[in-house]
Amino acid sequence: VLRITYRLTCAPGEDPDAKARDVALEQTVELPRAAVPDDAARMIGAVERVEPLDVGRWRAVIAYPDEAAGQDIAQLLNLLFGGISMKSGILVTDLELSPAALAALPGPAFGIAGLRSLCGVARRPLLCTAIKPMGLSAAALAELAYRFARGGLDVLKDDHGVTSQPSAPFAERVARCQDAVARANAETGGRALYFPNVTGDAAGLERRLETARAAGCRGVLVSPLLQGLDAVRAMAGASGLAILSHPTLAGAFFQPDHGISAEVLFGKLYRLIGADGVVYPNPGGRFRWDAPSADALNAALRAPWGRIRPALPVPGGGMDAARVPAWAERYGPDTMFLVGSSLYAAGDVEGAARRLRDAVERLTSPPAPAPPAPRPPA
Amino acid sequence: VLRITYRLTCAPGEDPDAKARDVALEQTVELPRAAVPDDAARMIGAVERVEPLDVGRWRAVIAYPDEAAGQDIAQLLNLLFGGISMKSGILVTDLELSPAALAALPGPAFGIAGLRSLCGVARRPLLCTAIKPMGLSAAALAELAYRFARGGLDVLKDDHGVTSQPSAPFAERVARCQDAVARANAETGGRALYFPNVTGDAAGLERRLETARAAGCRGVLVSPLLQGLDAVRAMAGASGLAILSHPTLAGAFFQPDHGISAEVLFGKLYRLIGADGVVYPNPGGRFRWDAPSADALNAALRAPWGRIRPALPVPGGGMDAARVPAWAERYGPDTMFLVGSSLYAAGDVEGAARRLRDAVERLTSPPAPAPPAPRPPA
Repeated sequence: VLRITYRLTCAPGEDPDAKARDVALEQTVELPRAAVPDDAARMIGAVERVEPLDVGRWRAVIAYPDEAAGQDIAQLLNLLFGGISMKSGILVTDLELSPAALAALPGPAFGIAGLRSLCGVARRPLLCTAIKPMGLSAAALAELAYRFARGGLDVLKDDHGVTSQPSAPFAERVARCQDAVARANAETGGRALYFPNVTGDAAGLERRLETARAAGCRGVLVSPLLQGLDAVRAMAGASGLAILSHPTLAGAFFQPDHGISAEVLFGKLYRLIGADGVVYPNPGGRFRWDAPSADALNAALRAPWGRIRPALPVPGGGMDAARVPAWAERYGPDTMFLVGSSLYAAGDVEGAARRLRDAVERLTSPPAPAPPAPRPPA
Repeated sequence: VLRITYRLTCAPGEDPDAKARDVALEQTVELPRAAVPDDAARMIGAVERVEPLDVGRWRAVIAYPDEAAGQDIAQLLNLLFGGISMKSGILVTDLELSPAALAALPGPAFGIAGLRSLCGVARRPLLCTAIKPMGLSAAALAELAYRFARGGLDVLKDDHGVTSQPSAPFAERVARCQDAVARANAETGGRALYFPNVTGDAAGLERRLETARAAGCRGVLVSPLLQGLDAVRAMAGASGLAILSHPTLAGAFFQPDHGISAEVLFGKLYRLIGADGVVYPNPGGRFRWDAPSADALNAALRAPWGRIRPALPVPGGGMDAARVPAWAERYGPDTMFLVGSSLYAAGDVEGAARRLRDAVERLTSPPAPAPPAPRPPA
């Protein structure tokens, strides 16, 4: 079965058991129970548990038959929150797939270990920035990529709003940025990677992936909620490119009492469709959403889950370079920090990147050996 | 320019002008103003107006350069609400495209007039139901389609959760349902249409459309937020099939003070990507979202808008058959009523459908001529 956990918030007089049963009907047969023919009754979600959490809130667990969604990602999203999105007080807080469903979805092709290998970084946290803003020429964006690569960042991704504006058309931008990063790597001996944003029209996606591959890129950025989740799943399986997912539009799901929790949306769904790295807005950054703890999200991305590889948490969105070491202490080394504005604000982006890289290197260097302790007097 | 209107809800002490400027930066350059290079400054949205609405609320209008989104639907959605989705108190209430952008997006291939022509219905409101539930065999679903077609409904669409479950695989279901409806039409002389749900994996979409076309279907149902908005746009242009859009997942955008208004999401975006008919949850039905007036949404779908054809409003979601005549009085004849559960609850779906059709026919029949007035005495 496919098991979904909800936090139900009930209005005064609303019955949590009835609300759970309504969810189970709405997400499957979309009929009142009495109108469901016997031949279809097996599709109705089975309410396994409804238990009080705090005033006005209950935790409900509903088990759906695998055949309701199968391996169809669009239908999985529909089953998760499609119809009930138009109701209220329903927050999806967990998702469990059956071993059979999990086995049919390969998940990230690279995962944490694969991304580390691509970057040639064994232990320390990884560092990422965004090449921006939209409106610059491809040459100017490439110069920024070159500077950040020389400064020692690991992944230089396009900003998620940089698509194929006339000032920097996709193919030209990819060629120039990738060349610039290769040149910087040749100069420094580094292994910085450029990940272009491939989000855009549906019909052109395959061509954009081919352009990125042909230029020598090893990964790409994509916004699953803009491109369609299954389009991302298909890329992960077939493109040979690492995938960094962008959270844009996801804030719609983060209402306090209604939506899909970040652990489920980013930590499970984005991982399931094959994101090797999952960008999310770090609490305390410039986004003011009421995020559940990033720790729980990080744990979900890294946890064992069938044969699905762990994905790399990528906190960003107003991540201050100066605070990266503190966040790294908290989040641990299997994290990629996406630092943008605070590097740009420094003016000398190469120098700012180098200082950030140095600070992160220091975190994981073994401490200098302590001087030998004075011998105790004999 | 591309002009977006927002309703900003400010926390105590939050400055509405600063909030509007922050939106203009966040949705374009994603940098603090001081860090934006001169070469990209033209991309920042221009805050044209910030005016008070009521306590704590302001109306802001921001004009973005066309080149920020171009004709890229994914990027248009990103520009509309991508990054700011993760902030709070920002509701998109209007969207205006430049004549150039509008001209590049053909919109519905059929529109209201085209759907009426397909159904052979000149004046009265149209009638639609959902073939369900998931879990029935293709044969059982086809029998339902046959009954509804005999009862005189115009459009019989798959339920949005009926995808390609093993009990009714897509190709078998389409063939059986389409045959059943053709048989009913041959018996009644009617022109009922079967619209299969083509939502599913990205790679298989083209094949599903071909299957529907080959079977003789004239239209399909698709869920844009599951499939990807641009995938729908591409279908509208090339498939030769009428498109009915389903609102699933859209409730995420309908937070009271944060999101995208139904007029913009359904009334403009779904119309722009080519939905000929737009299903939406009717206020007072089984969905409890705080919908703005359906009248405004209906008006947006039908209003003149460049060369974009008007799209048919399709209120549904707990639409009671008995109340359709009352809603029809309010919404007017250029509406398709999606009536599901109340027909199923009747048991005899053919009879229930016929009573609904008769009730709607009576609405628009010219009243019987009044008896001649008695002559006044000479």
